[in-house]
Amino acid sequence: MAAPIRIGLVGVGKIARDQHLPVLAASPDYALVAVASPHGGLDGVPSYATLEAMLAAHGDLDAVALCQPPQARFAAALAGIAAGRHVFLEKPPGATLAEVGLLVAAARDRGVSLFASWHSRYAPGVEPARRWLSGRRIRSVAIAWLEDVRHWHPGQDWIWDAGGMGVFDPGINALSIATHILPPFFLTGATLSVPANRQAPIAADLHFADAAGTPIRARFDWRQTGPQTWDIRVETDDGPLVLSRGGAALSIAGRDRPLPPEAEYRGLYDRFAALVRSGASDVDLNPLIHAADAFMRGERRTVEAFTD
Amino acid sequence: MAAPIRIGLVGVGKIARDQHLPVLAASPDYALVAVASPHGGLDGVPSYATLEAMLAAHGDLDAVALCQPPQARFAAALAGIAAGRHVFLEKPPGATLAEVGLLVAAARDRGVSLFASWHSRYAPGVEPARRWLSGRRIRSVAIAWLEDVRHWHPGQDWIWDAGGMGVFDPGINALSIATHILPPFFLTGATLSVPANRQAPIAADLHFADAAGTPIRARFDWRQTGPQTWDIRVETDDGPLVLSRGGAALSIAGRDRPLPPEAEYRGLYDRFAALVRSGASDVDLNPLIHAADAFMRGERRTVEAFTD
Repeated sequence: MAAPIRIGLVGVGKIARDQHLPVLAASPDYALVAVASPHGGLDGVPSYATLEAMLAAHGDLDAVALCQPPQARFAAALAGIAAGRHVFLEKPPGATLAEVGLLVAAARDRGVSLFASWHSRYAPGVEPARRWLSGRRIRSVAIAWLEDVRHWHPGQDWIWDAGGMGVFDPGINALSIATHILPPFFLTGATLSVPANRQAPIAADLHFADAAGTPIRARFDWRQTGPQTWDIRVETDDGPLVLSRGGAALSIAGRDRPLPPEAEYRGLYDRFAALVRSGASDVDLNPLIHAADAFMRGERRTVEAFTD
Repeated sequence: MAAPIRIGLVGVGKIARDQHLPVLAASPDYALVAVASPHGGLDGVPSYATLEAMLAAHGDLDAVALCQPPQARFAAALAGIAAGRHVFLEKPPGATLAEVGLLVAAARDRGVSLFASWHSRYAPGVEPARRWLSGRRIRSVAIAWLEDVRHWHPGQDWIWDAGGMGVFDPGINALSIATHILPPFFLTGATLSVPANRQAPIAADLHFADAAGTPIRARFDWRQTGPQTWDIRVETDDGPLVLSRGGAALSIAGRDRPLPPEAEYRGLYDRFAALVRSGASDVDLNPLIHAADAFMRGERRTVEAFTD
């Protein structure tokens, strides 16, 4: 068994506490050495206000995982790479496409692994769905990603700022699955609904097509109360495939398929460990490209102001 | 001397009449065989309402040049590629990044040349500027692209629609030069000024940085009356380099450099002929990536309504 990867976590917010820390605590591949956060640290773990302070104090860190908001991620990623550390990026890998291109080049030049993680691709139904769809004729796709922002992102003002992505923060999870299980597609039209007092959309209605003209429609909406919906329905010549609960459930032609329990972040950290041990990187920009395309090409309409 | 490339032009608007047709008429590399436009044809040249009709009538066409608005370009490009024709794309190469990715794959699969043209890169001062800057230390960059939209785009409603790009239509010319002569950079912040009655911005204030932190600022504004400005000023340790008049004039450390006369589209069509004859493609998405990043990350503010 290889020695554990000595890792530091940057950004100790909701996603770090809910997902990263429990997986790191349970994995034999990692030793959590330190955390860095401007908003306070973690009991029992050496904690620093900045990545720079953490790197200075722990010269033997192998890797850093970056979980802070996307607007602040580039500087940290570049500093980590420049210090010769492998870098795990939460999704989305940056606030812009161009900055991720620079990180890819920097990681290659420095000889470290860069992993742009897309956690939803590690949902248990995704890989079986991808395999079943491969080679089948697809007639249409309907994606519905409907959730209650007040429940999932309470008081997260950064998500509403320019570059915070708004409803594309969850919606990009749907795009990360769709780009993984479907043939290449592109945006043909979009409507973005933006609250009067915010910069980022609260809802998006997206129309895509693949090269064969197959219609792919995605609706993202953060105004859903009651039951939450994270579904991708693919109509094929052999019946419908339905990936629901964000990829945790799969039915094909009306029959539920048995799946292992959800373990997305375990899957991500397994993948990152494999990348680090083999000296490779994994950066797929397609989900972020579709989001950027929607912001560039989408029609904006102003909707009711949103307050938390 | 190789036989001329038999070419058809799609979209007979302002840019086709001002630039493409005169260059094709003068070049020994090309024979203009036909044109296609829903808004009427061209005297003395076989004219069709659609690309499909043109392709059906002229089975021996080698190539097509696509000059219609970006929102309609993908379907035409894919049809041209599917028919085995080489494709010349006006800038921007698409309304989305993803669609251009599909075109690149389709052209590769079909064995035809795809050229995403960026005409400003062929301005006479650009290549000398690139060579002089190469290896020099850059301190800062200021880009000012200020023009009168009423003069340059009279009544072009499509340019104000979602996907029409607004002031990024000329601004992407500046970005195409900057990405050619500077080290890689990325957007760090932006403000987009959008008229109350339009979808696309009339002005943009963009802040970029390269990996070393060098500040690069670009101001695009369509509300400029009087003298027009298309300037890129690069401060270096060896004095300033100033590329002005869109790249038609160059001064280095205060001294004007002699340049040949403007011949951007001649340069583009020479390049396209070389690509066709060598079986290569040339698609650089970086200018469009920066535009998409600005739409995704930029802060929008509403400004006075614009009417033609």
